[in-house]
Amino acid sequence: MPPGWENSAPFRVDCETAMSGSFSEYKGRSVLITGGLGFIGSNLARRLVEVGDVDVTIVDALLPGQGGNPHNIHDVRDRVTVHTANMGNDWVINHLVGGVDYIFNLAGSVSHLDSMVDPHLDMELNCAAQLKLLEACRNFNPHAKIVYTSTRQVYGEPVYLPVDEQHRIAPLDINGIHKRAAEQYHLLYHRIYGTRVVCLRLTNTYGPRQLLHHNRQGFIAWFIRQAMDGGVIELFGEGKQKRDLVYVDDVVNALLLAGASASTEGEIYNLGGAEPVSLADLANELIRLTGRGTIESKPFPLERRLIDIGNFYASSQKIETELGWRAQTSLTQGLSQTVEFYSKNREYYWNPHASTLP
Amino acid sequence: MPPGWENSAPFRVDCETAMSGSFSEYKGRSVLITGGLGFIGSNLARRLVEVGDVDVTIVDALLPGQGGNPHNIHDVRDRVTVHTANMGNDWVINHLVGGVDYIFNLAGSVSHLDSMVDPHLDMELNCAAQLKLLEACRNFNPHAKIVYTSTRQVYGEPVYLPVDEQHRIAPLDINGIHKRAAEQYHLLYHRIYGTRVVCLRLTNTYGPRQLLHHNRQGFIAWFIRQAMDGGVIELFGEGKQKRDLVYVDDVVNALLLAGASASTEGEIYNLGGAEPVSLADLANELIRLTGRGTIESKPFPLERRLIDIGNFYASSQKIETELGWRAQTSLTQGLSQTVEFYSKNREYYWNPHASTLP
Repeated sequence: MPPGWENSAPFRVDCETAMSGSFSEYKGRSVLITGGLGFIGSNLARRLVEVGDVDVTIVDALLPGQGGNPHNIHDVRDRVTVHTANMGNDWVINHLVGGVDYIFNLAGSVSHLDSMVDPHLDMELNCAAQLKLLEACRNFNPHAKIVYTSTRQVYGEPVYLPVDEQHRIAPLDINGIHKRAAEQYHLLYHRIYGTRVVCLRLTNTYGPRQLLHHNRQGFIAWFIRQAMDGGVIELFGEGKQKRDLVYVDDVVNALLLAGASASTEGEIYNLGGAEPVSLADLANELIRLTGRGTIESKPFPLERRLIDIGNFYASSQKIETELGWRAQTSLTQGLSQTVEFYSKNREYYWNPHASTLP
Repeated sequence: MPPGWENSAPFRVDCETAMSGSFSEYKGRSVLITGGLGFIGSNLARRLVEVGDVDVTIVDALLPGQGGNPHNIHDVRDRVTVHTANMGNDWVINHLVGGVDYIFNLAGSVSHLDSMVDPHLDMELNCAAQLKLLEACRNFNPHAKIVYTSTRQVYGEPVYLPVDEQHRIAPLDINGIHKRAAEQYHLLYHRIYGTRVVCLRLTNTYGPRQLLHHNRQGFIAWFIRQAMDGGVIELFGEGKQKRDLVYVDDVVNALLLAGASASTEGEIYNLGGAEPVSLADLANELIRLTGRGTIESKPFPLERRLIDIGNFYASSQKIETELGWRAQTSLTQGLSQTVEFYSKNREYYWNPHASTLP
């Protein structure tokens, strides 16, 4: 920590308290969430509203095909400030970072397939925008704590399982290359300028408020939709691939814990699930829960096979040991809450542009 | 190699011939050099002109403060085609890649210090432009062989010496992060689309036609200028740091060998010097050769210390074994040729904008 800053970050969290969900360290603080109308960002914003007395600001570009959805915050709209703007615009981000205590930096593109179709756009969203944010903090708010969400995709195909933070980095697509560059930016700004950053490498997150109107942002949301629609869940290679699935509330817990702890600065943490699940098991569980949907086994399409990573599950031992985090939601519980949510809110998620900002 | 391409690349080179400088494999071929008015690019263009019957096209944006200098090719101007254009412009690059056999992809920013001052510009030059080139090749010329010049900076601080290609990647500045991303782009396009690429990781290259009008593109050129001006060569930390120095003609040899050999596709090769040299020894040798200049030892300035990597020298064993390359020019020989060149051409290198394109 740079000299003179010792007194600016007394926010160390008590893990037991944190996992029980109070997060009172955030009371009276101001929080900026980039990508805050998206899946994880909106769940985080809602949790902070529950904490109470938190000044929550959201910036989201609401780019078509990305995860931003105004409905995600419709019932807490009067308790958060929303800027529909691109954080790659430095006039915007320079203004927004001023004076905030925490920045949850979730904006970015997450689609591996989209990144191969339009690599330049992926670079703009995952590299250029991140540089703007970090430069804004360096120049206008060197005290803010930044929590950056990276991805397991930076590891590429696993050499061993479970994958820990020492695993070699070998991204297999443009998205993974750019997310890795953005991690490195964050760690570099920490090392050179003392910017207070922590990176979390997320695996497959699922839950309410995820994008479901196309299938290019991960398989879980699409499986859920197919099951609920009584459609066909396509399994490539018989669905034997094992993955971590983490319920979004558990991810939000990790974000808040990592933000509140000063000991996380300059660190990277994996977020893995409680237990790896095969895609076939996931599909069967969804069919059981919804009472609908069927499975169809297919050979891998070329464009997916080339960037597929086989089995993947991460070790969360580091964040468990250091911050007391663990995935607490069982797959059955998480999926049934998710299905229940979409049953009630189908109209806002089944099609794009179904809702606008109140 | 994608099916059907087997007959398109019969350009495997005979190493003995190559190291002796004939490179007849390039005769009758067309070559595009990005950044071709710069230091290494112009030396490469001149060599190809010497080979004879090579259709040499240069694209260079001549960006202020970068290495492009029209004087570098003034005496071969009528034997090369020059486009003063930014390869980040896809209208330009889509047009230029059409039909060429080889692309020596040298464009980019090389200053570690500049990259920290303007990270966004470094991203445009080292990431965005590279994506445009690779997309252009994918769409309009999937047969071209691309030789990309990366940098030892991707390794960061060495964990062991000499650094081989298996050394862990940990760039310490924005430039290193972006050069690594660009390497990964090239290897990804090879893997996914069959683009014919090879990456060379250069260490410290020196010789005629380097930028000498500011000191932000590496220490060697600046040391040479200071010695020739009878000025002060500043050594940080007593100049004990050891580095590889590779004379530009040897680098050009490596580029041509790597371009001509089909076995290099998808590979990365280090280019190290014959023997590591301490900065103090380099300074003393320059003072001896020029009969001028003095040494002053100084503590490291903060902005340099934070991105300095200590001792660094690379193992070239892979390219020596596989392609028969080795650094052939001794330091004394290379430096004396360099000093002689600048003595005769001082007016074109001591100040920016000293020459324009004929």
